Amino acid sequence: MTKPLIFITNDDGVNARGLQSAIRIARKFGDVVVVAPEQSQSGKSHAITMYSPLFLRKVRQEQGLEVYALNGTPVDCVKMAFDHLLLGRHVDLVISGINHGANSAISVLYSGTMGAAIEGSFYGSPSVGLSLLDHDDNADFAAAEVYGTQIIERVLTGGFPTPLCLNVNVPVGTLESLRGIRVCRQNKGYWKEEFFCRRDPRDKEYFWLTGAFCNAEPEATDTDEWALSHGYVSIVPVQVDMTDYSRMGVLQEAFPPQE
Amino acid sequence: MTKPLIFITNDDGVNARGLQSAIRIARKFGDVVVVAPEQSQSGKSHAITMYSPLFLRKVRQEQGLEVYALNGTPVDCVKMAFDHLLLGRHVDLVISGINHGANSAISVLYSGTMGAAIEGSFYGSPSVGLSLLDHDDNADFAAAEVYGTQIIERVLTGGFPTPLCLNVNVPVGTLESLRGIRVCRQNKGYWKEEFFCRRDPRDKEYFWLTGAFCNAEPEATDTDEWALSHGYVSIVPVQVDMTDYSRMGVLQEAFPPQE
Repeated sequence: MTKPLIFITNDDGVNARGLQSAIRIARKFGDVVVVAPEQSQSGKSHAITMYSPLFLRKVRQEQGLEVYALNGTPVDCVKMAFDHLLLGRHVDLVISGINHGANSAISVLYSGTMGAAIEGSFYGSPSVGLSLLDHDDNADFAAAEVYGTQIIERVLTGGFPTPLCLNVNVPVGTLESLRGIRVCRQNKGYWKEEFFCRRDPRDKEYFWLTGAFCNAEPEATDTDEWALSHGYVSIVPVQVDMTDYSRMGVLQEAFPPQE
Repeated sequence: MTKPLIFITNDDGVNARGLQSAIRIARKFGDVVVVAPEQSQSGKSHAITMYSPLFLRKVRQEQGLEVYALNGTPVDCVKMAFDHLLLGRHVDLVISGINHGANSAISVLYSGTMGAAIEGSFYGSPSVGLSLLDHDDNADFAAAEVYGTQIIERVLTGGFPTPLCLNVNVPVGTLESLRGIRVCRQNKGYWKEEFFCRRDPRDKEYFWLTGAFCNAEPEATDTDEWALSHGYVSIVPVQVDMTDYSRMGVLQEAFPPQE
């Protein structure tokens, strides 16, 4: 029997520690191919590179592992893997991460990690985005690796229907302190910015985004935000039909169908 | 009575012709503030700029119109407007566009135009993304302006519930040739890339994304793709809860709730 083939990418770049965690998880289950961004791509969402060429660099190769870096976005990395590097090969699973920082709630929309996970699911492979709620370069990924392993194993063996894309977030804590896994819905809310404003050496004003998440439903107990703030690992299944069906009626009334 | 305040951005940049069309539409209804990217931001999705400073440049000001350029993404432009430039002012409407090129179906996910429109809706203003199915710099925006005007007027006066975000696409054609407006759902499908591959002057291989849309439901008649290919202007209401509720059951079984 051939080993499963697992594709990995991330948004923190090829040198991020979280990527090494994802590789360690994946190698327990199969052969691994990595295409990760050359540089950090945090907040790059589902962006693709349209106006500049992409260069693919082989970083290392050993038995059961190939690592490449691409000067593009996380979604570019997925496309490079599925439409070029691995073209024609069956990919059993996509992992994006482990991200340094949360991708819960509406952050799924801004996240390069989740952009890549979603893109991976378009190619028919089950896809898992993994994030740890710790931005620190030296974050402790131990508990995230244990939970990541458990979830990846379940996804590889569970025979879930595809497309399947999971947004997994892991709170900060030791394995002992975490309380288990919760399957949740995406918390409603938005990011409000406070622009950090300074003057550059030529006295020109510049701005820097510094956001804070506003939870629109702090009382809800079935959301990823609730799970994470109560010590649970959250899993939100993600889909991409963004149609607002609740507005169809009022809009069809305002713009009646024409022949 | 004070005039409505309309905020405009786009993803083709401050010099794009489509932006001028959006400004012409908006000025029929109110005062207009524009913050548009300095450069083209096509395919930038919901990306934000996290690792570099943003500079805001006033491009022009006249009665009822202020135009700024920002060296950021379309979503950065929206945040700059709502969280800084227009902070505390009531914005009656957000327009993003008019985009040069389609943003129907799954392109809503990759589109900088729609990223900005969605972000605008987070601030409580009705928000409309306008796109013309013509990438040409010299595209004819005449019909798109007429339909855009009609839709903007309805949104400004219709008292629709918020959040409201509309993804409007206009087929290529004269006003006479177009058949009217259809409120639709987002067509299912995905983009498959064929990498354009060449060698640079130093004989290093490079790649360039060139995608083609694969329609996963060509027979469906209630989608934006169907409407557009049959000569209709499409309106898809957009929301951002990406939870895949259809997968909650099977996942909750696989990962049962823990105390």
